[in-house]
Amino acid sequence: MPTTVLSNIGTLVTNDPTLGDGPLGLRRRAAIAFTDGRVSWVGDSATAPAADIGIDLGGRAVLPGFVESHAHLVFAGDRAEEFAARMAGRPYGAGGIRTTIAATRAASDDELDANLRRLLAESVRAGSTTVECKSGYGQSVAEELRSVRIAGRHTDEVTLLAAHVPPPEYARRADDYVAMVCADMIPRCAPHARWIDVFCEQGAFDRDQAHAVLSAGIAHGLVPRVHGNQLHQGPGVQLAVELGAASVDHVVHVTGADIDALAGGDTVATLLPGADFCTRNAYPDARKLLDAGVTVALGADCNPGTSYTTSLPFCIALAVRELRMTPDEAVWSATAGGAKALRRTDIGVLTPGARADAIALDAPSHLHLAYRPGVPLISRVWRGGVLVVGK
Amino acid sequence: MPTTVLSNIGTLVTNDPTLGDGPLGLRRRAAIAFTDGRVSWVGDSATAPAADIGIDLGGRAVLPGFVESHAHLVFAGDRAEEFAARMAGRPYGAGGIRTTIAATRAASDDELDANLRRLLAESVRAGSTTVECKSGYGQSVAEELRSVRIAGRHTDEVTLLAAHVPPPEYARRADDYVAMVCADMIPRCAPHARWIDVFCEQGAFDRDQAHAVLSAGIAHGLVPRVHGNQLHQGPGVQLAVELGAASVDHVVHVTGADIDALAGGDTVATLLPGADFCTRNAYPDARKLLDAGVTVALGADCNPGTSYTTSLPFCIALAVRELRMTPDEAVWSATAGGAKALRRTDIGVLTPGARADAIALDAPSHLHLAYRPGVPLISRVWRGGVLVVGK
Repeated sequence: MPTTVLSNIGTLVTNDPTLGDGPLGLRRRAAIAFTDGRVSWVGDSATAPAADIGIDLGGRAVLPGFVESHAHLVFAGDRAEEFAARMAGRPYGAGGIRTTIAATRAASDDELDANLRRLLAESVRAGSTTVECKSGYGQSVAEELRSVRIAGRHTDEVTLLAAHVPPPEYARRADDYVAMVCADMIPRCAPHARWIDVFCEQGAFDRDQAHAVLSAGIAHGLVPRVHGNQLHQGPGVQLAVELGAASVDHVVHVTGADIDALAGGDTVATLLPGADFCTRNAYPDARKLLDAGVTVALGADCNPGTSYTTSLPFCIALAVRELRMTPDEAVWSATAGGAKALRRTDIGVLTPGARADAIALDAPSHLHLAYRPGVPLISRVWRGGVLVVGK
Repeated sequence: MPTTVLSNIGTLVTNDPTLGDGPLGLRRRAAIAFTDGRVSWVGDSATAPAADIGIDLGGRAVLPGFVESHAHLVFAGDRAEEFAARMAGRPYGAGGIRTTIAATRAASDDELDANLRRLLAESVRAGSTTVECKSGYGQSVAEELRSVRIAGRHTDEVTLLAAHVPPPEYARRADDYVAMVCADMIPRCAPHARWIDVFCEQGAFDRDQAHAVLSAGIAHGLVPRVHGNQLHQGPGVQLAVELGAASVDHVVHVTGADIDALAGGDTVATLLPGADFCTRNAYPDARKLLDAGVTVALGADCNPGTSYTTSLPFCIALAVRELRMTPDEAVWSATAGGAKALRRTDIGVLTPGARADAIALDAPSHLHLAYRPGVPLISRVWRGGVLVVGK
């Protein structure tokens, strides 16, 4: 495989403090080389090595590709009318996750696959070079198995969201649903997934139910992640830390004890401001988490109900405006933070040996991602050293 | 010129209630024809006329092109560091409009023109088919003349923002600056502009100064528009209505008397939520304005200091989340509302005889502009019937 050298980079974000300034390891007037799908060299543009393919970036910024650690992409249908009704303040009792469960169950494999590919293509155009993908709109053994298999065609980061909400046939029988999940669904689906996930929230699953699902997943070789503390204070955060989850996601309504648990554990707090934007909920207090030493990731939470965006640049802008993260913190959380939430050391950084997953901006620095909200700044994307967006 | 027919449109927004449902004049399964740069026919897809160029939109939505009625695009430099400092809560006394005045004065004509063309290209990719363009970073006769001339190469909607802030050589001599503007700048620049604008705000220009500038502009054939009530309550809104301004822009801090004046006059209230986003200011209360019968437009206010976005889709999403507009209201305000703010009847609508300025979305309805924030949904743009974005 030829060596590609990107030269004349205005600002290079390496996320390696030994390679440059600050936590982002920033270098100015930099160059980077990719060989065999990996970063092979980082240095000054003036001393760049010989290249088979040389690209002069004309002062543009280069960053690690975004690591999307929270996405619900296996589904059918949309809920635009529900969104419009919610924004207009009209009650909308019939909607919700179950609308999408019904549409997903009614869709063919080809329809689900095509919708997933459409959203993954949109994600990579927005700079996400790794995308986690959850099931969760099947909520039966056969349907969840179908979802994780379809997801597995497109990403290694497959999450069995075994317990999203109890499906209609288990209405008011969440315990029975959980028993089925533990006895049947997880054993059947675990070979096709890396992660086990649960929505621990009022109206979804309580602490004991979530504990049972996650424990069954762990027993079958899956690593836990948790939807917790989105709409109310609750047990999700502390359960996640207790079970060694890679990440607890949303983390909007938290106590001091929740923050202490996160600061003392290995669980990343993944914030999903797109969901808070689209539901007009409160935003999490990222400042308090960061100041306590919690590792924070940003995800877009793409799903058809509560956050139908694939754009981590949009989430970075929200994180700066609403979560009071600095632009540097927000960029780190959408790259290195996402990698930590997926327990990956090969992505989210641009250091020799890392995967050559990178993006170039139509802007001189990473600050522009927050400074220029809504503007599609991603001009080129490389995945494994191969240019997949731009030319 | 050949006839183009767009057929199989999922949702067509005409903004003509006689052509379809509601204020947006919505039609499903529609088609539209463009001939000689104008809309020549609107109807059902099944009965579309013969076409020289036929485009099957596969159920996608078509809307009038966005009408951007508030943009500051003649400038040099950027203020990313000032933005990052502001978002981090650090005081940043040295920045502001004067930073951009210095950079703009130092730039060559070619540099200003290239930057303007870059931002206009970005705007049209985001769906804006008409873009107003203000001067205002020159603030001397020669520099403002240069700015309006450069703007006039690219748009008919040129605004002389004669009084933005007093430039350094008039520090603490705003009255002297206004006298110079009225006596020298306006007479020299008026032949190259359609509009006269002033920033009526504490720290910029007070009521009497703004009145003098606008009156001088009117005397030279310009039509007034006003930056008012952005950071504080003040005289801007009522001055605008009193002088028959086409629009008063920002309109964040208003009294009941201001709203009454707007509701009783012909002045559009142009809301600029991108500026409120980027400066972490309060948002205007669009609901109160709309419920009082005020005509509301949305603009992106692209400028390097306080709203460096060209994206009206982003502003539509903000208007729904933060200003409590419905998705329909926000879409109307960014199309027909913008046209009213520019006193244009030929744009912002897709009705026979109107300019064939239209956009197609990668989505089945206009709701998706708010429902899918941060996602670049504009797949095709026609200006005067010519496809200028997409293929």
